[in-house]
Amino acid sequence: MIQSKQNEQIKTLKKLQSRKGRKKIGAYLIEGPHLVEEAIKSQAPIKGIYYRPDAYQPAYDAYDNEEITEELAAYISETGQSQGVFAWIDLSVQTDFPIEDLQGPVIALDSVQDPGNLGTIIRTADALGYQQILLGSGTVDLYNDKVLRSMQGSHFHLEVVQADLKTSLRKLQERGYYVLASALDDQAQSLTDYQPSDNQWVLVLGNEGQGVSESILALADQKLYIPMAGQAESFNVAVAAGILLYALA
Amino acid sequence: MIQSKQNEQIKTLKKLQSRKGRKKIGAYLIEGPHLVEEAIKSQAPIKGIYYRPDAYQPAYDAYDNEEITEELAAYISETGQSQGVFAWIDLSVQTDFPIEDLQGPVIALDSVQDPGNLGTIIRTADALGYQQILLGSGTVDLYNDKVLRSMQGSHFHLEVVQADLKTSLRKLQERGYYVLASALDDQAQSLTDYQPSDNQWVLVLGNEGQGVSESILALADQKLYIPMAGQAESFNVAVAAGILLYALA
Repeated sequence: MIQSKQNEQIKTLKKLQSRKGRKKIGAYLIEGPHLVEEAIKSQAPIKGIYYRPDAYQPAYDAYDNEEITEELAAYISETGQSQGVFAWIDLSVQTDFPIEDLQGPVIALDSVQDPGNLGTIIRTADALGYQQILLGSGTVDLYNDKVLRSMQGSHFHLEVVQADLKTSLRKLQERGYYVLASALDDQAQSLTDYQPSDNQWVLVLGNEGQGVSESILALADQKLYIPMAGQAESFNVAVAAGILLYALA
Repeated sequence: MIQSKQNEQIKTLKKLQSRKGRKKIGAYLIEGPHLVEEAIKSQAPIKGIYYRPDAYQPAYDAYDNEEITEELAAYISETGQSQGVFAWIDLSVQTDFPIEDLQGPVIALDSVQDPGNLGTIIRTADALGYQQILLGSGTVDLYNDKVLRSMQGSHFHLEVVQADLKTSLRKLQERGYYVLASALDDQAQSLTDYQPSDNQWVLVLGNEGQGVSESILALADQKLYIPMAGQAESFNVAVAAGILLYALA
């Protein structure tokens, strides 16, 4: 059983809490029995599992695994209330999914910055059966612990591609894709009056404060808005994503 | 200008950060220029406004107001990055809105516990033009600062009624209301195949982990589910609210 914070593996796990550490090491950390189970089910490239004795599951034996003390579990945990199991997942084997291989509806996120929003959008996309998500460069890191918590493992089920949005959208348009963007300007069409003619579309959702950036909006073939009847000025972006993705499906 | 943490008004504002303090004092605290502006626009019962000199707005002069130092603004703030203006709002003048007066669609929340979810649901309801929300007893406090931040002032636009859900739903049923509940069991009907026959309905949404409680589900005239095509096991409750409220409107 690992007992010391000075242990090299523990030091590595701790480094995976920062984006910089994840990039350097080429891995990320997941926490909690539900996420670890999802990683196992989804055959994610698990490099090691660390657990408190009371959190042991026989399934962990198929991987490199180590017992850790209660104190170390609390030390590694980012939640304040550790559930006692962690896994680190290799990022280096992640092959780049080429834009050329995208088929059917795509969701593109332009600078979504709140981790809970990003995680919730990916969970929603998964629930509704969407399979492909482009993350523009200004978007929060997918492997941030708060994103991982709100995704609930959905990133194991979908293709999530880091991409330069402008280039990617243009490539998709060359292949016949229709670019939809959420926007409130007066050229936008009401969602209630719109149905895509086929499933070759990509929906762009934007930043919490600014919406979709001007340069991306300029590429859009169709801007869409969700009709608002009340006094609120906008929707939370994850709620907007849910409504749009439900209605466009 | 107030300069000391020992000032009685500052001590009161600080107490408003806890549910207990809010209850005892009969007021709650809002923070930031946007929320204070919404409170003014909505003629909320503002008892006082406190601002850093750089955050002053002429509109504040219509109320009891005090300048505070930058240090005190940081001390009162719950965000880590104070925008320098606060108001406290009287709760004692809030008249109970009787169940008998509800007209048209109602949203009922059964033990929604995440502050961000509660705030986002109320903001979404406002954006979609709904006007009445029942908060069941297990639901997080409406005046929690995280709820207030994610509501973005929408509680000023709607009737939000604290209620015993079972009693209230029965009363609504006696008045001809149809009780809809979000549920995943096999008696539930797909949202895509359902439209309410009139606008006398109340939609019940449940707790993040447990869903709507059994005793409330037993009262439902119709259970509804959002069809899921992917691998995620559920929707975030605020996203589910958005989809259901959009589709039922």
